Formats: sequence, structure tokens, C-alpha cells
Amino acid sequence: MELELVTIGNELLLGFTLDSNSAYLARALAPVGGRVVRNTTVADDGKAIGEAVRDALARTGFVITSGGLGPTRDDVTKKAVADIVGQQLVLDETYLQQLRERFAAFGRRMADSNRTQAERPEGATVLPNPIGTAPGLWVESDAGVVVMLPGVPSEFRALTDAQVAPRVAARARGTAVVSRTLRTTGIPESTLGDTISHLADSLVPMTMAFLPSLAGVDVRLTVADRTSEEARIALDDAARQIDQLLGPARYGEESDDLADILIGLLGARGETLAVAESCTGGLVGARLTAIPGSSRVFVGGVIAYSNRLKERLLDVTPAALETYGAVSEVVALEMARGVRTRTGAEAGLSITGVAGPGGGTGEKPVGTVWLAASLGTTERAIRRVFPGNRDDIRQRAAQAALDLLRRQILRDDEEQDRSE
Amino acid sequence: MELELVTIGNELLLGFTLDSNSAYLARALAPVGGRVVRNTTVADDGKAIGEAVRDALARTGFVITSGGLGPTRDDVTKKAVADIVGQQLVLDETYLQQLRERFAAFGRRMADSNRTQAERPEGATVLPNPIGTAPGLWVESDAGVVVMLPGVPSEFRALTDAQVAPRVAARARGTAVVSRTLRTTGIPESTLGDTISHLADSLVPMTMAFLPSLAGVDVRLTVADRTSEEARIALDDAARQIDQLLGPARYGEESDDLADILIGLLGARGETLAVAESCTGGLVGARLTAIPGSSRVFVGGVIAYSNRLKERLLDVTPAALETYGAVSEVVALEMARGVRTRTGAEAGLSITGVAGPGGGTGEKPVGTVWLAASLGTTERAIRRVFPGNRDDIRQRAAQAALDLLRRQILRDDEEQDRSE
Repeated sequence: MELELVTIGNELLLGFTLDSNSAYLARALAPVGGRVVRNTTVADDGKAIGEAVRDALARTGFVITSGGLGPTRDDVTKKAVADIVGQQLVLDETYLQQLRERFAAFGRRMADSNRTQAERPEGATVLPNPIGTAPGLWVESDAGVVVMLPGVPSEFRALTDAQVAPRVAARARGTAVVSRTLRTTGIPESTLGDTISHLADSLVPMTMAFLPSLAGVDVRLTVADRTSEEARIALDDAARQIDQLLGPARYGEESDDLADILIGLLGARGETLAVAESCTGGLVGARLTAIPGSSRVFVGGVIAYSNRLKERLLDVTPAALETYGAVSEVVALEMARGVRTRTGAEAGLSITGVAGPGGGTGEKPVGTVWLAASLGTTERAIRRVFPGNRDDIRQRAAQAALDLLRRQILRDDEEQDRSE
Repeated sequence: MELELVTIGNELLLGFTLDSNSAYLARALAPVGGRVVRNTTVADDGKAIGEAVRDALARTGFVITSGGLGPTRDDVTKKAVADIVGQQLVLDETYLQQLRERFAAFGRRMADSNRTQAERPEGATVLPNPIGTAPGLWVESDAGVVVMLPGVPSEFRALTDAQVAPRVAARARGTAVVSRTLRTTGIPESTLGDTISHLADSLVPMTMAFLPSLAGVDVRLTVADRTSEEARIALDDAARQIDQLLGPARYGEESDDLADILIGLLGARGETLAVAESCTGGLVGARLTAIPGSSRVFVGGVIAYSNRLKERLLDVTPAALETYGAVSEVVALEMARGVRTRTGAEAGLSITGVAGPGGGTGEKPVGTVWLAASLGTTERAIRRVFPGNRDDIRQRAAQAALDLLRRQILRDDEEQDRSE
């Protein structure tokens, strides 16, 4: 089922606000059979809104609007849509009463300007807004369906999930577009393609998109023109085969965070972690502590940005710094050991590199990073040269460090299993 | 001068990519007199592109397209636009030769699919792309102007700045919309409004928008319907008056980063900085080290997430932890002193708080953070209770910590000036 979105807001056209509602809507409706074929952004202007809605109705017969439902004079969507579908605006007494009660519950009197929020085209169904005061409205007419949603992202999302998606599913009643995303890291896009691309030619055809980011390469599988159930079975099957081919390079699904997964692995072993960061300057610690409850695993660590602090706080030897330089295997290993000794953690992770833009040499160009992990009685260091700017290099280094320790734990757990 | 944007890409409609080109274009053209009045997003589909461009031309006579210029079969913009304006596609031999030389310079042979990148509508002007292989194209016809730009954000931006903005300026040749943004932190939006709102009623009328974020509240001043020069003079004048009213709460302009400004202040004094982070877990260090050259000021520090590490690595006293708890003035001050002692830095900054979602108590609810700065012989600690989720609280705390030290330096410098 095809539909169009009309996004309303001066701030969007001026470029001061980025629109995230359109992406949310597309991703929420695809699995239930709704496909957004056009998105038109117009100003808070009745004429522009009316024209955009009219043209969109003529093309697809199903239009969703975002924005322009607030109580201020800028909010003109309802009037414009009512005119287009040839309905009067009427006061919804039931909703007005609910609004009054809502204000009363907060100990406030409702302002007169809020009365307009209870207005609706006479044939419209009110879609309750669980978060804000502007309800969604579902209007059917000979011209088709217009669904008006508030533009505040949290409200737009809540109404999309609770009210719009189920109704679109009921109308589409057939085939759907279902996607599944597998997250990989530490494997180049080209190798990934060579390894798994052939799986796209399954019994159920699917598209396979490779989406590189600073966290690695995501693989997005999409099945179209099948029922949701058929699509899900095909995607599960493909995901299983990909897992077998990729092994540990596949670390998660959808929006999984590698830091979260590492915390889970260490937590299951009852072990703690400390970090020693040079060029990342705290990025790894910040990612680990972004996760609620990470304190059961992560104890902290040292940001050793200067060489002096590498010696003072991590017991890196002056000889190693002088002989091999701060960005070296020996120093990375000494940092990982040192942070374990100083903190008493069971696992230590270290990062030292040249993030640029300056500081590169022929032997150690910008992007060169040494990473080391120390866990139990094993330790491992790897050298990587990351592409991109300073921010890219730092983020890639943080991700690679988390991945280094994750793979070490997986190997360790595997050997444990074998020896048991 | 009004114009429309047509944004092309399946990935955008599917919701897997967020469009940032439209915001960039709007902000780049506003100061030179170009106003984007509508943005239409369509699929990589010749018919949809053609209709969208035709309708937009009919409304404004000036259309910019983004995307669909690459060498793959998905890229159909040129053909669609050529049809709409009634021109043939021809091979631009000059550009083809440049393309070949470009590939040769990288030691590669040009693939046949790249030949299509040298095609253009017969009346089109080629706008050189300094970054990629797809040039921009400027097409004039009786129907109006169509400017085709590549969708890759870095290329879109480069061409907008170098080729499109100057040409739009030449056409608009009159009034412009000019904005200026002042960044404030540590002052509530309501106080800010009470203090400076009256300045919007200047001789030259301007709008004043208050834009709250985790970094503070930005004040955006906008003057419309004046020449660029008149607008700039009015904005400079308003900015001066706002500075006098706000004092140190105004820390920067446009996209200035507080961490960068703090590095500058300490660098001017020839002093070094170390941080002791608990609930922020490395965020402050990560922000400071994101700035190229920060190593002349920032030496590193300690992530003391567990109480044990506060004692082991920062010499926080067990008595203080037991008597006052980890989130307290005494512990924050001991952390700031401790990190100076351990690292030898002239300035120490510490953060300890309850980021949630768990761990709050009646006395110390989620959001409670103690911050301390130690500089020379002075030290200062403040308690704040930040709203929002875990991520919000951590980011607000990092910003407030940087601001605490910045204000201490400003006071210090002022006293120095007075005593000299």
C-alpha cells in the first residue's frame, strides 16, 4: 500500500531542525505493508499545506501529515486539511473535557488557546496522544485518508506505533517489507561481500545492503512482496547461514552496541574491566559507562594522554617509550598490564595511536593505532591503520579495542568448553 | 528569491538514511537571499523525479536536486531533468577527458559505467566537483533553472558553497535573511528570556529564538528583509548588548565548543589540566581530546567509576566516602585535588554524580552531580541536579564541569588584571 507524508514546519525549511519523523514513519510502516513513496516538506502556511495534501491525495489516496497541530497561531494544518476534504471544523466536546481534566490534574487552568486543540474536521476520529495535548486525527473522505500527527518526535512516534501502524496493517492486509540487520565489525566490506553475497539468491529473494559506519559494516537483509511470516522465516534462515560463514565478526543485531555486549560477556564470567586510553582520551570509558548497570563490570581506568602520565599512572617504562615510542606494541602491552595492576581488574584494555591531523610519520602515519588486551594469563596486541579524520580514527579505535577483548573472551570461553 | 529542493533517494524514503543536505542548503542560501519554500523527497525513479521537478519549476522557476548522479543504473536524475526541460543528453568531451585523467592519476582505468557521468543536457553548464566524480549541472530553460547536485553530503556541501551560493546571490541581488547564534550555558532559558528578550525590538526588527540543548541555550538572532550589510550591523549591535547583559554565561558563537574555549584559556596561561571522572566515565576527557592540539594543555586523568578506584588512584579518603558518600562536596574536592597531585597538572576538574536510571535516593535523586575545580590556590565545588535521562545527565554534567573551570579562570584573570 503506497502513501505519502507531508512534513510541516518553518524550522525544517530554514534548516535549523533536522527531520527524523519521516525516517521513523517509513521504518514503522514498512513491516506492516505501508510504503512511503514521497515526502513533501512545506512551511507553516495554510495554502502550501493545502496544496501539498491535495496533490498527495490525488497521487496515492493516503496521506500522513506531521506537525502544525499545536495551540499557537502558526498551527494551521487542521484548517487546511478540513478545507481540502470539504468538512467543517467542529469542537470535540469529549476531547475538550479530557483536556480540561488533564490541566486540572497538573493543578493548572487551561488557557483559551488550548481550546483549538479540541477542534477537528467533523468526520474525523480522534487518536489519543499519550504524551502531549495535541491529539492525532484520522479523516476519511471521498478523496482518501488524511492522518494528522503532531510534529514533536516523541508524540509522533507514540501515535505512529499505537494508532497508525495497526490501522495501516489492517488496510494493507497482504504483503509486507521486512528487514533484519546484522552487525559486523573487524571485517572489510569487500571480504564481507565475497563471503555472504551469494545468500541473497535464496528460495525467497532478498536484497542485501552493506552499510559501513565507524562501528563496522551492517548487513541489512530485506524481503518484499511476501507475508510478514514468510519474510521472517526467510530472514531467520539467512541470518543463521550468515552467522556460520562469519563467525565472531557478527557481534549483534539492529542497534546493539558492542560495549553492551562486552559488558554482558564479562558479567557472565564475573570479571571486572579497566581501560588505559591515550589517543581515545576517554571514549572507551564513556561508551562503557553509557550503559546502565555497567558498574558491575567496569571499574574505571586511566586517561594517559601524555607520555609522562603513561609512566606515572600506568608504570610504562621510560625505556619502552624511548626505544619504541608511545605508539608501539610494547607500550600498548605495558599500558594494558599497568592498568590491571593499578586497578586490580581481571581484564585490561589499552589504546595508543596517532589520531592526527598532525603527528604522523612515514613509519607511523596518521591513523596508526596499537591496541592491547590483557585477560587472565593471556595478552594480545594488534596494530591497525584506520582511515578518516581525527574523530573517525578515534571512534574506529574505540570499537576495535572493545572487539579485541570480545574476541579474546570468545576464544577463552571456547577453550574452557573444550577442556571441560 | 524563492526556490525548491527535490531530494532523491530510495534510502531516504525507506528511512535508513537521514537527509542532512536540505538543512545545509537552506542555511547556506538564506544569507545570500535564497529561500527554500518546499523540499520534496522522491525515489530513484525517473517518473517520480520528473513530476516533482516539473511541479516545482511551475511553482518557483528555480529547483535544486540532490542525488541520483552516480554511475549506477539507479541514477536517473539527468535523464528525467533533460526530458522535463526538453533537451538532449550529450557527452561532454572535456569533462570525459578530465575524468580519464583523474582515474589515471590514481593509477586506475576508468570503467565504462563512469562514461555516463560525463553526460549532460545539451544546454547545461558543468559545475566541477572538487571531491567526487559526479559534477554538478546547471540547466537553464524556458521553464526556469534546474541545478543538479550529487547526494553525497561532502560533495553536495562543497558544490553548494563554491558554485550554487554565489550564483544564487547574484540572482537574488537584494534583501537577505541573516542569522547569528550566541551560545550560553549555566543560565535557565526563562532567565535568559527575561534578561534579553526586549532587545528584539531594536530599530532593525529581528526575531530571537531560544534553542535549548544539552550544551546550554543558544540564542539565534535573525534579521530578514534587509541587505546583508544592514543585517550584519544590526546583529553585531544586538550581540554586543547581549554580551553586556549576560556576562560570562555567553561562552561562544555558532558551533563553538566549550571544551575548545577552555583549552584556549588554559593555553594562554601556559597551564595544564587533568580530569577525575566518575559518572561521566571519560566523557570530559573524550571532549577535550577531540580537539586537535589539545595535548599542549590536557595531560589526561583518571576514570574513577568505582569507589575503590577513587581511593586507589585519587587518594580520596575512606572516611569521606563513608561519611558523605561518593556523591558529595568533600569527595568531589578530594578528587579534583587528588588528580592534580597524581598528575602534576596546574588545574584539576572532577565530576561525581547519580546518572541513573537506578541509584537515586530522597536526599540524592537521579541527576544529582557534584562538580569541583581546583586551580592554583583556589578551589570551588557546586552541586547541580540535572533533568533528563542517563545520557542527558552525563552530557549536562560534562558541560557544567568545563564551564565551572572556565568561569574560575575568567575570575582569576580579572583579579590579575585588577591587581596589576
